[in-house]
Amino acid sequence: DEEITDVAHLSEAFKEGQISWVDIHGFGDRQTIQQIGDLFELHPLLLEDVVNVPQRPKTEAYGDQILILVRMVQVYESGEIDMEQVSVILGKNWVLTFQEKSGDILDPVRKRIRNKTSRIRNSQSDFLAYAIVDTIIDAYYPALELLGNQLEEFEDEVIMDPTPELLRKLHRMKNRLVNLRRSIWPQREAINRLVRGDYPSISENVRIYLRDTYDHCVQTSEVAEMYREMVTGLMNTYLSSIANRTNEVMKVLTIMASIFIPLTFLAGIYGMNFDHMPELHMEWAYPMVWILMLLTAGGMLYYFWRKGWISLDASSVENEE
Amino acid sequence: DEEITDVAHLSEAFKEGQISWVDIHGFGDRQTIQQIGDLFELHPLLLEDVVNVPQRPKTEAYGDQILILVRMVQVYESGEIDMEQVSVILGKNWVLTFQEKSGDILDPVRKRIRNKTSRIRNSQSDFLAYAIVDTIIDAYYPALELLGNQLEEFEDEVIMDPTPELLRKLHRMKNRLVNLRRSIWPQREAINRLVRGDYPSISENVRIYLRDTYDHCVQTSEVAEMYREMVTGLMNTYLSSIANRTNEVMKVLTIMASIFIPLTFLAGIYGMNFDHMPELHMEWAYPMVWILMLLTAGGMLYYFWRKGWISLDASSVENEE
Amino acid sequence: DEEITDVAHLSEAFKEGQISWVDIHGFGDRQTIQQIGDLFELHPLLLEDVVNVPQRPKTEAYGDQILILVRMVQVYESGEIDMEQVSVILGKNWVLTFQEKSGDILDPVRKRIRNKTSRIRNSQSDFLAYAIVDTIIDAYYPALELLGNQLEEFEDEVIMDPTPELLRKLHRMKNRLVNLRRSIWPQREAINRLVRGDYPSISENVRIYLRDTYDHCVQTSEVAEMYREMVTGLMNTYLSSIANRTNEVMKVLTIMASIFIPLTFLAGIYGMNFDHMPELHMEWAYPMVWILMLLTAGGMLYYFWRKGWISLDASSVENEE
Amino acid sequence: DEEITDVAHLSEAFKEGQISWVDIHGFGDRQTIQQIGDLFELHPLLLEDVVNVPQRPKTEAYGDQILILVRMVQVYESGEIDMEQVSVILGKNWVLTFQEKSGDILDPVRKRIRNKTSRIRNSQSDFLAYAIVDTIIDAYYPALELLGNQLEEFEDEVIMDPTPELLRKLHRMKNRLVNLRRSIWPQREAINRLVRGDYPSISENVRIYLRDTYDHCVQTSEVAEMYREMVTGLMNTYLSSIANRTNEVMKVLTIMASIFIPLTFLAGIYGMNFDHMPELHMEWAYPMVWILMLLTAGGMLYYFWRKGWISLDASSVENEE
Amino acid sequence: DEEITDVAHLSEAFKEGQISWVDIHGFGDRQTIQQIGDLFELHPLLLEDVVNVPQRPKTEAYGDQILILVRMVQVYESGEIDMEQVSVILGKNWVLTFQEKSGDILDPVRKRIRNKTSRIRNSQSDFLAYAIVDTIIDAYYPALELLGNQLEEFEDEVIMDPTPELLRKLHRMKNRLVNLRRSIWPQREAINRLVRGDYPSISENVRIYLRDTYDHCVQTSEVAEMYREMVTGLMNTYLSSIANRTNEVMKVLTIMASIFIPLTFLAGIYGMNFDHMPELHMEWAYPMVWILMLLTAGGMLYYFWRKGWISLDASSVENEE
Repeated sequence: DEEITDVAHLSEAFKEGQISWVDIHGFGDRQTIQQIGDLFELHPLLLEDVVNVPQRPKTEAYGDQILILVRMVQVYESGEIDMEQVSVILGKNWVLTFQEKSGDILDPVRKRIRNKTSRIRNSQSDFLAYAIVDTIIDAYYPALELLGNQLEEFEDEVIMDPTPELLRKLHRMKNRLVNLRRSIWPQREAINRLVRGDYPSISENVRIYLRDTYDHCVQTSEVAEMYREMVTGLMNTYLSSIANRTNEVMKVLTIMASIFIPLTFLAGIYGMNFDHMPELHMEWAYPMVWILMLLTAGGMLYYFWRKGWISLDASSVENEE
Repeated sequence: DEEITDVAHLSEAFKEGQISWVDIHGFGDRQTIQQIGDLFELHPLLLEDVVNVPQRPKTEAYGDQILILVRMVQVYESGEIDMEQVSVILGKNWVLTFQEKSGDILDPVRKRIRNKTSRIRNSQSDFLAYAIVDTIIDAYYPALELLGNQLEEFEDEVIMDPTPELLRKLHRMKNRLVNLRRSIWPQREAINRLVRGDYPSISENVRIYLRDTYDHCVQTSEVAEMYREMVTGLMNTYLSSIANRTNEVMKVLTIMASIFIPLTFLAGIYGMNFDHMPELHMEWAYPMVWILMLLTAGGMLYYFWRKGWISLDASSVENEE
Repeated sequence: DEEITDVAHLSEAFKEGQISWVDIHGFGDRQTIQQIGDLFELHPLLLEDVVNVPQRPKTEAYGDQILILVRMVQVYESGEIDMEQVSVILGKNWVLTFQEKSGDILDPVRKRIRNKTSRIRNSQSDFLAYAIVDTIIDAYYPALELLGNQLEEFEDEVIMDPTPELLRKLHRMKNRLVNLRRSIWPQREAINRLVRGDYPSISENVRIYLRDTYDHCVQTSEVAEMYREMVTGLMNTYLSSIANRTNEVMKVLTIMASIFIPLTFLAGIYGMNFDHMPELHMEWAYPMVWILMLLTAGGMLYYFWRKGWISLDASSVENEE
Repeated sequence: DEEITDVAHLSEAFKEGQISWVDIHGFGDRQTIQQIGDLFELHPLLLEDVVNVPQRPKTEAYGDQILILVRMVQVYESGEIDMEQVSVILGKNWVLTFQEKSGDILDPVRKRIRNKTSRIRNSQSDFLAYAIVDTIIDAYYPALELLGNQLEEFEDEVIMDPTPELLRKLHRMKNRLVNLRRSIWPQREAINRLVRGDYPSISENVRIYLRDTYDHCVQTSEVAEMYREMVTGLMNTYLSSIANRTNEVMKVLTIMASIFIPLTFLAGIYGMNFDHMPELHMEWAYPMVWILMLLTAGGMLYYFWRKGWISLDASSVENEE
Repeated sequence: DEEITDVAHLSEAFKEGQISWVDIHGFGDRQTIQQIGDLFELHPLLLEDVVNVPQRPKTEAYGDQILILVRMVQVYESGEIDMEQVSVILGKNWVLTFQEKSGDILDPVRKRIRNKTSRIRNSQSDFLAYAIVDTIIDAYYPALELLGNQLEEFEDEVIMDPTPELLRKLHRMKNRLVNLRRSIWPQREAINRLVRGDYPSISENVRIYLRDTYDHCVQTSEVAEMYREMVTGLMNTYLSSIANRTNEVMKVLTIMASIFIPLTFLAGIYGMNFDHMPELHMEWAYPMVWILMLLTAGGMLYYFWRKGWISLDASSVENEE
């Protein structure tokens, strides 16, 4: 539980006979990574997987070392979701973890280690590896919850107020979910291989714990899948909603135009300057034209009401919104 | 068959040599749960799955105890569907059930226990566990029937009267079905593991009964899937229906505008004030203009009728609605 | 081959040493069903599956009795498709069939039994069960053919004349197909279990026949699936077709409005009553305005023709329809 | 290699000890088919599969005879694709093929047989059966290529000129592909069963050749699937393209209407006949009104240009098309 | 490491006891290919797969030779993606590669061979084959990255500026991705067969390296799948975006028409020439009409503002774009 920046010191700190957890941040210095690799006798392909991020989450045995690649998810205040590869290497009596950036997601594990009576302190390295992986998987729950809350907000907006801005948000959300699912999905298989007992260095007892982690993996992957399905549904609803609004706009236009265009035509008729237009000189012609116009307008309104385009309900404006 | 609120009393009530069913409601008191866990010697991971709801439905063996996690569905009068995790733990000669809220869904089981001659009273604990799970699964049928009835109502509305309100209802229905399917789906697998005989503490005889429960699981999951497909279909139909209506609206507008705009133009021509407009002074000009207008309008109507935009059928208004 | 309405008589009619087929219609009388169950020593769960219709098609062994649940399809003249559960129970030397309503779908089997030289009369009960199931599966072909013919009719209509009525028909068709597929699908698995040889009471020889029935199951399920895909395609085509027509309508409106609105404006200009409008008093002004109007209209027409909105082809009206 | 129309002659021609290929066209005469069946000792179910076309492509063993049902595809000049069932029956030292219509698709096989040094002449009957099946599968490539070329033609048209006629063509193409895929798909499995070695009468050596045929099956089925996906994509693109065009049309209408309707209103104002309209008598009123109109029109144009509805690019007409 | 154009020389250059890599470009000369086939004792079917391009990627054993068919991807500056089949044949102590066109994609392998201390030079032929396949698979990453960058560019455009040109680009991109996926997909299986140990000539040690290649295959296929899903999403977003814009255009038209059409009608009324129109002679009639018009226009604007069609926000033009 100390911070070491020099590999030589690491070599000293790493005392045989004790279970050690070495947590390495950043891969800046290729040579240092190589030294660590030599110290722990890591397979060159294993080192490559650790350094060339992002790899697909997986579990892989190299001799009696097990490489567990998982993705750590972090939620920023801006709502953005960031994913980072964490490599957990389980050796005989040590656990090595590599991550690119420093994060505090593994703090709960550290706390449990410092606690002298905790189970983690009194168990083998496989239990420590389980604790690390479990903590990383559990961090998906708050991330998914955040996305779920955003989805719920979008749901009302999509029908009430479908703006291009919302479309863009939905689009971004969908890509984020597609991306998220892509990293959760292979984790199921990776953890499952640990549970199934492919690796003898993981004890039966720890496998029962890992079974729980596997269940969480499956659950998060199903939630991510469900959200993706829901956001796809929302985008279709968006299209329907826009079509609805266009229909609404068209009805207003059609009603206005259909009522006033014939009336304007009638007015145009009696605005003509022919010498011989007997109606112009009749005394009741002007009011008669008004009556004719009102009848025409009334007829159109009745027709539109029959078609259901006009509702007499005064609250229609409110309802639409 | 008594209500006990104190764990100490439970301990007394729990007499060896008899099959007991302990039904626990609410997880308010962490400590009580722990005491129950100690009393029944439950694995800590099992207790965690029971308390941290909702877990994914599953069956899991911890030693010779079997944890069966299922989702109970309850339909409220408002049409809302509520799901709640029920944990059934099958021990040697007892069955423990945990649920968060009190519900009367398990009443049929209680009734059968009180009946002295019933099979449930004279069987082992595995049969009791079956009876509880079967009762929970059977409760999906009325919930699905309710959703099916709502879907049927929506079907006509979608073509007759596609309002934004209906779109919202369809959207909610879809999410409800996605959610429902998500809890039914893993239950298939969970029950199947009981049927397959992975657990020796479930007798061959009870497995035949569980096979029936499994069939019901599969059937409900297929119905939920079919409903989800139908509601997706309805949302697409909604879009088509709206497009149809917009087309209808556009036709009316186009017919009105195409007939009257040229006529208004003609009227406008003879409303001009040029000094030299010979037509204005002809005697038959005014009736000629009327004839020209009628011909124009008739020509347009004929064109629209040819295009099929106007139907001579008087019942067209009714048909559209 | 006689009609018996009393279970007591049935008991007599059922002579040991002969292969009997007992066909029971309707489950009205719970007690009678129970008597039959006792007579044939049916498992209570088997009886439940028989009576509580509709169950999911399946094959299930209860001791040396095999329950085969299939769905019988019947096409009515109105084009409606009706499905009904038929339970075939294969015992040592008898076959029991249960169906709710009377139907003549099994008549071909009866005819073959009456024919003394037919294979069915000289075989074991498993061949009789095969003959019944095969006859039921074969009845799917005419039902699918009818749906196929309807689909073909819809295909032309969807592009030529996409009315809301057609949309409704398509929607109904889709639900019918979803429903149909849902009952055909599990039949595949049910028949496959008979073919695979899970049940020793079905002889190797009959299994070769059942393999053929299985192939028919797969074929009908694939046709139903293909039809469902086609009807989904038709509904999308419907939407495209409507969009097309709206586009067509809009073009007419736009052409009419774009030509006459500027002309009406021009006419409006010279209908103004200003004292000082020199054009009004020019001798050639009126014809000049006409020329200006014709040029404007011609320009618009040329622009629309360039855009491809107007085709010079006289047959355009016909083509569109 | 002779044409025989009488079964009696066939019986003679069929000499023991030689590998024979009997190719039968048309199933007109039920009795002849039965005679052939008797001659070759074919299982009645096998004969039924051969005669009742179309069956689902499959491989089925009846004793030591193997029935291979495949679909032959033929492309007509009109672009239509015709499929026909070919039944290949592999016996001890003969191969029987049944097809409904005469076709020249198997000519390459005949040519290879006539060639005395060819491998086909010097091999067992299983190699002959392979050669026939391989020739039939290879005929899918030109059919798919033809469809691929048509698809490519549609691709440009869909964006450039989305007519209802094109929609119909796309729809037909889709159905053709759905149909094609439905016959290619089960062929994969059918050929795979031959490769896997389920049938001892197919030698290891021929299985290596069949592996190649299987690869072609998989490849054609993948191409058909890809085409189906592409045509679905095209139909969606069609809808987008139509929506685009409607948007284009609407913009023209809106621009025209929005510019001229206010101007016409202005002209209407000064066409009123009120006695007291001081503007009418002002000397500069008429030119002022023109200036006002030009400013209004300019303002609208500027607004539309800001919105991006008008492009100053002279080539816009060309671009749109 | 020399270029040889004559097969006779090849025969000499190919010295027993050394691991050789023979890289052949172009299949122009059928005879040469045959000579090479004879020299290396290649199975005729193997040669056929090599020459008849493109075959589906696969691994196939012919005796102790292994044929590995993969697709090489090359990105041109124009953004086009070109795929070409590379056949890698692994013999006892040689590796043969065939490719149609010359490319520099295998240069890294050549460089490693020339380096005397490199692992590749000191290993068996199976390691050389691995190095070649790995280099080819790794070339998918830059190709996918390029497509990913293009997709990102399209994402903004789709909502900001959905032109027909963009639709065409999206369509092309989709087809390219469908095509790419189709060649990556079977490579997974091909490489997996090498990893699983189906072929004894690949040593355990090289299999560990191939496992890495397999992981890259899976990752690239998942990225291609994700991109395809994203481009499908983009095309749907495009449609929504267009619908949005049409709605926007319609609103402008409706607002303009609804405001000015009634006003024009009013102006038309008082442009009529009836002898008896008392309003015309009232002194305050003209200003009253103006007031009436302003009230009408204001009422319409208020109505549209209530409906949310007009936003008072001055930045609305910017926002929309």
